[in-house]
Parts: sequence; structure tokens; C-alpha cells
Amino acid sequence: MPKTSHKGYSMPPSPIRKLVPYAEEAKKKGRKVYHLNIGQPDIETPETMLNAIHTFSPRVVEYSHSAGIESYRRKLTAYYKRYNIELDYTDIMVTTGGSEAIEIGMMTCLNEDDEIIIPEPFYANYNGFTTQAGIVIKPIRSIIETGFALPPIGEFEKIITPRTKAIMICNPNNPTGCLYTRKELESLKEIVAKYDLWLFSDEVYREFCYDDKEYYSVMNLKGIEQNVVLLDSISKRYSACGARIGALISRNKEVMSTALKFAQARLSPPTFGQVGAEAAIDTPDSYFKKVKSEYVERRNFVVDALNKMEGVFCPKPSGAFYCIARLPIDNSDKFCQWLLEEFSHNNETVMLAPATGFYSDSSLGTDEVRIAYVLNLDSLKKAMQCLDEALKVYPGKTVLKETVVQSS
Amino acid sequence: MPKTSHKGYSMPPSPIRKLVPYAEEAKKKGRKVYHLNIGQPDIETPETMLNAIHTFSPRVVEYSHSAGIESYRRKLTAYYKRYNIELDYTDIMVTTGGSEAIEIGMMTCLNEDDEIIIPEPFYANYNGFTTQAGIVIKPIRSIIETGFALPPIGEFEKIITPRTKAIMICNPNNPTGCLYTRKELESLKEIVAKYDLWLFSDEVYREFCYDDKEYYSVMNLKGIEQNVVLLDSISKRYSACGARIGALISRNKEVMSTALKFAQARLSPPTFGQVGAEAAIDTPDSYFKKVKSEYVERRNFVVDALNKMEGVFCPKPSGAFYCIARLPIDNSDKFCQWLLEEFSHNNETVMLAPATGFYSDSSLGTDEVRIAYVLNLDSLKKAMQCLDEALKVYPGKTVLKETVVQSS
Repeated sequence: MPKTSHKGYSMPPSPIRKLVPYAEEAKKKGRKVYHLNIGQPDIETPETMLNAIHTFSPRVVEYSHSAGIESYRRKLTAYYKRYNIELDYTDIMVTTGGSEAIEIGMMTCLNEDDEIIIPEPFYANYNGFTTQAGIVIKPIRSIIETGFALPPIGEFEKIITPRTKAIMICNPNNPTGCLYTRKELESLKEIVAKYDLWLFSDEVYREFCYDDKEYYSVMNLKGIEQNVVLLDSISKRYSACGARIGALISRNKEVMSTALKFAQARLSPPTFGQVGAEAAIDTPDSYFKKVKSEYVERRNFVVDALNKMEGVFCPKPSGAFYCIARLPIDNSDKFCQWLLEEFSHNNETVMLAPATGFYSDSSLGTDEVRIAYVLNLDSLKKAMQCLDEALKVYPGKTVLKETVVQSS
Repeated sequence: MPKTSHKGYSMPPSPIRKLVPYAEEAKKKGRKVYHLNIGQPDIETPETMLNAIHTFSPRVVEYSHSAGIESYRRKLTAYYKRYNIELDYTDIMVTTGGSEAIEIGMMTCLNEDDEIIIPEPFYANYNGFTTQAGIVIKPIRSIIETGFALPPIGEFEKIITPRTKAIMICNPNNPTGCLYTRKELESLKEIVAKYDLWLFSDEVYREFCYDDKEYYSVMNLKGIEQNVVLLDSISKRYSACGARIGALISRNKEVMSTALKFAQARLSPPTFGQVGAEAAIDTPDSYFKKVKSEYVERRNFVVDALNKMEGVFCPKPSGAFYCIARLPIDNSDKFCQWLLEEFSHNNETVMLAPATGFYSDSSLGTDEVRIAYVLNLDSLKKAMQCLDEALKVYPGKTVLKETVVQSS
């Protein structure tokens, strides 16, 4: 029997999905599991999008252009204009989800063994994409005490080597919910320009910025237009994760023509998703207003509930629909598995993502979990109650000194 | 400005799509262009498939399982059973088109610099996928005189080195239309077993086998079950190229669990396409009978027409919807471009794929073109007339000796 590849061996299993078998077991026991482990929102996909797919009746479901349907790409320029991002449609390549935008972006810009600096904790699948491409992640730590703000530029500069070719950010951030300020991004620009690096920015959560804080895109940083690659997706925007439609965007013509060669190899992005995505651009503002106020309410509830629990700390995020909480636990992997295997409260339990999967150093995140507030308020209330009860009885609880004194 | 990657530089542009700008120019001049260059059939997508998508109204368009929707995978086992391929649904991973099945299959099984033997001419995009994965193609020539039959096993053995890790075939074959016999495949088995190689088989054209010739799948070769990886797609089967649904299939559990890690990184295959593909399994037999007789008629016409042209030779293929013809021309790239740029007959012209793109050695295929008989008979007649007229006036015509005598 021949051997599978080294790369296949090195590929990390999804830290978000690896606990799925335990959740399935819990469900088989008749337990209700609240899924706060994955960024799969419960928000309705807009009718505008579904209607377009339901009325799309081609005689033949053909390949589209490898860079995507032209009318969709042209319409996307109007969408980005709402965020003051001026683009020509040729700056946009439609991809199969944001995932493919990252894959193609990395293969287009980076060589094997090149280094890419990414603030951690970061979206776990970046590990998979860099492993695939043979690229080395140089993490730079953002910390819970500052709400996971962008680390000072000096920290970036410290780890730059001749092999450093890129910086990658996610803004608003998954998994931290942090929304970077314009000032932070302006200082990032300095270092990108100084070392002539690529700047990848994953901005798939731009619709989810709260408290009137400003979303500022790297596409608007002046002077580094040729360095910037924007990675995008409609999955969260229209709650249409299964449509698998994303985009790779750059004003750098060399990037776009090289990316197109990778896109041609895989022929085209999915037609039905593109048809839906094109129509979805007309989704009324009222839809987003409703969704946003829903998320704000959920966030406020979850963050408050968490901070009320003994020994728990959770900074209030300004974007996306995630937060990271520090829990009084010995090991987040063990804890999240225990929640599914051993624990139940009123025959219910909660599934969380251990934060270890979001750090490149496996010793980090052991007392942190990522919580996706993608369920309705009622479910979130029950889920937080489960967590509260669970923390009271978890055998691996790490107790504060005063608590030790009291309980001994 | 930072530099794009070496890999991006090495990626071949699609030989099928690189002439597109010339076709667009021709159309701007008001010329009708018959597209015989690309495997985009004009056959109707079955209603069964479109109806399922039109009535699919989820509240939320969610991610599916990374390996595909379970009910679809289960139903696929019944589909394969029709071809005497016995599978468990866990042997099947749904992919984003056959393209992704190839990408993930290669990353799963092969290391960088590993060698893969592929009979040439081969599907041009294999070049892209191996470049992406850093794998080296060792071509082995199949020749027009034998109708591009599988080369003798001795030829394979001659080029096996310690780095050889896999053989890849496409059956029925794109671009040659050749359908390999059971005997050819049995002898291939011997060498796969002897050297313990992976055997990749791209069998996306199994619905298109003609003249009652037998389609025999590598999945039914006994004794090498752990070595075989089947690459599949619904693009041609249901004339649904834009749905982007394929499959990677293996009875090797290590292959499947490793492939799943790559699949998890990209989250899931497209939901709408999967819903349609699941329903499409119920497409009535009458659909395929009609399609098959249509293709047989087209093939017979095209092959006859070609062989009647002076100096042209085209073996009659038994499968898929392609044939390769040898033309009396100096250079197939130049000729195909000239057809679009310079030639017209009744204000019409024809677009063909230069066979050079299907060989790894650029000196081969210079007098061959691939013709996809994907248009209706009426269009094919006009297209063949264009080609006939074109060959009479093409300045780079290579004439036979007797013709030289006559014309001088």
C-alpha cells in the first residue's frame, strides 16, 4: 500500500470540526447541543438571493468565465463603492468561497518557505492553507487584555527576516471580534511599504461592525495599492455559507493575471452561487439593519453573561460575531470535549471552539474558548446557563486563590 | 512592488482558453465562431436537476459536511452500483468539480518532486494541477496511428524510477476519445501492483461510451483496491459544468481521512450544486439514450468529414466527445489563431484547441488539433465546412509531395 503525502500528514484537522463526533454522540444520548463552535449563522438568507436562484433556468448550466460572471463582477464594483472602495471589475476575481481566495492568493504571491506574519489568535484554517502552500506562519501575539488589538508595529518589525514576504490580517477579526482602527491600519501600512511586503486582508465580516465604529479597508491605504490583496466572501454577509462564493481582489495586474492561471486550472466558480450573489447585492438595507441589531443584542448578552461568571473574562468585541473568553480551566480542548461527553444541564449542553486551534503555538489558548454568537437570544441564554453550570462542576477547574481558601 | 511566486510564473495558462481574446475579436467583427475548442456541451441539463434546485428553499444556505451532504453520498453509491462499482458512502468525498478532486487527490497522495506517469496527449489542466502540487509529470506517448490506445506496459516500465509514485489515466479519454479495454487496464494493474503505485483514474466521461464497447472502471481491478483513487464529476454526465460538483473516491481509508483534512480547510462543496446532483441521479435512462445517440451521430459526422479532407487523419474514438485530428499544417497554435484572426467563410469561422497544449513536450501536437463535438449537427456541418475551406487557403499548409508537384 503506497504512503500518503507528508503534506497530508502535516495538514491540521479543523479544530472547529474535530469535536463533531463527540457532539454527535451527545445528540444520540438525546442531549440538546447548542452550537457556538462554528461561524454558521442562523440568520435567514435574503429572499432576493434565493429568488434569483429559483428563477434561474438556463437550458444548459455552463461553466462561467474562470474569473466569474462578468455582470456579477461589474455589479460587485458598485457594492464595494458603498464602502468607498473604488475598483474596476477586472480587479475582482470571483472564487469558490473565501477559502479559495486565500488558497489562490497565497499560491500567487508566495514561494515555498516564505514567511507570512499573522497576528494570533487567527482563523484556524489559515494553518491549513499555509501548510498546503508550504508557507511558514510567523505569529505575532495579540492579547485578551487589550481586546486583541493589532500588536504595536515594533512587534512586527522584530520578527521580519529576509524571508518575510507578507502580512495577513483579518478585519473585523475572526476569532477575536476585534475591529482594527484606521490608525492601526495606517501604521501597518508603514511597515508594508518599508519592507515592500504583500498585505493580505480577509474582510469577510465588514457588514458586522458595531457601536458606530469605523470599518476601514486596507484597499483605501494610499501608496501600497500594488501590495494589497483583499480576500472576501459572501458567506457571512448574506448568511449563505453553502453558496461558496468569494472574491480575490487586487489592483496589482500581475497578481490578477497570475491568479487567473490558477483559476483557469479549476475552470470556474459555481454558477448557482454566482447568480444568487449577483442578485443579493440588491438586498435592502433594512435586512442588514435588522441583522446588525440582532447581533448587537446577542453580543451584549453573551459578553455580559460571560463576565458575570466566576473567574471568566471576555473583552467586548466591535465586529464579526465571535468573542474569545478566558475561562478558569486547565485545558480548553479537554473542557470542550468534557462539555460534550460528560456534562449536561437539563439534558442540554454547549459546544465551543477551544482557542488552542487559533494559535500556532499549542501551549497558547489553553484557557480560552471562541464563542460564535450565531444562535438566537433564547438559545444563547440557555447555552450560557449551561456554561455557567459546567464551570461550577468541571473537574479541571483552576480556582482563584481566595476561592481555594474558601473551599479548603 | 513585491514579486509574485515562482509557481504562479510556472503555471501554464489554459491552452483551451488562451485563444479566447482572438475569438472575442472575431465576434466583434461580426463573425460567427463555432466553439469546438472546449468541452462545454450544448446538451440540456436534465429537468430533474434544475427542479430540485428551484424548489430548494432552506431558511439558511448552510455549509454542508466537508465531505458532502450525507444523503447525496449515500445515493451516489446506488449510482455507482449501476456500473458494478460497490462502494460505501464513506469511500466518497464530494468535491467542487472534478478539478478539486484532482487537486486534493494529488496533495493527499504525492510529495513534491514525486513523479506521475500520464499517457499523453492528456487533459491540459493536469499540467496546472501538477505545477500547483510541485509534482513532475513523466509523459508516455500514445499515438494517433493506434487511436491513442494505452501504450504497452513495457513503455511504462521503462520510465519508472524510484521517484515514480503514481500513474494517472483518463478513461474514456479527454482529449483523444479513446476508451481503454479491460485487457489494457488489467495489464496496467500488474505494474501498479508490482511497483506499489497510486493509480488515479479520471472517469468523468463514463456515460459516453459508444458502439457497445465496454466501460471498465479501475475500481473493479482486483488486488489493487488500496492503490486506486477515482476522480469524478457530474459536469459532463448531466451537462452541468457550472454546478461544480465532483467526487474523490477511494477504498483506502488513509486516503479518505487525509483528503478530508484538505476538504475541511476549504469548508464544504457548493450546496446548490449538491442538491441538484442528488436529484439528478434519478434522471431517466431515456435522457442518456437520447444524448448518446446524439453524440454518436455527431462523432460519425465529424470523423467522416475530417477524413474526407485532403491530408487530414482522424481515428474514430469510442468515448467522450472529443477527437484528435492530424492536419496538414505547420503549427497548430498558429493555425488556430489564424482561424480566428484572419479566416472567415460566409462570415463564419471555427475555434479549435491546438493539441500542443495536451502534450508536455511542446514540440508534439504541432500538427494536431482537438475537436469537441459539443454542438448540434447543423453547426458541426458548418464548422467542418469552415475547416475544410480554411485548410485550402491556410498559408502554413504543409503539402504532400504529389500536391507539391501539382501546384508547382
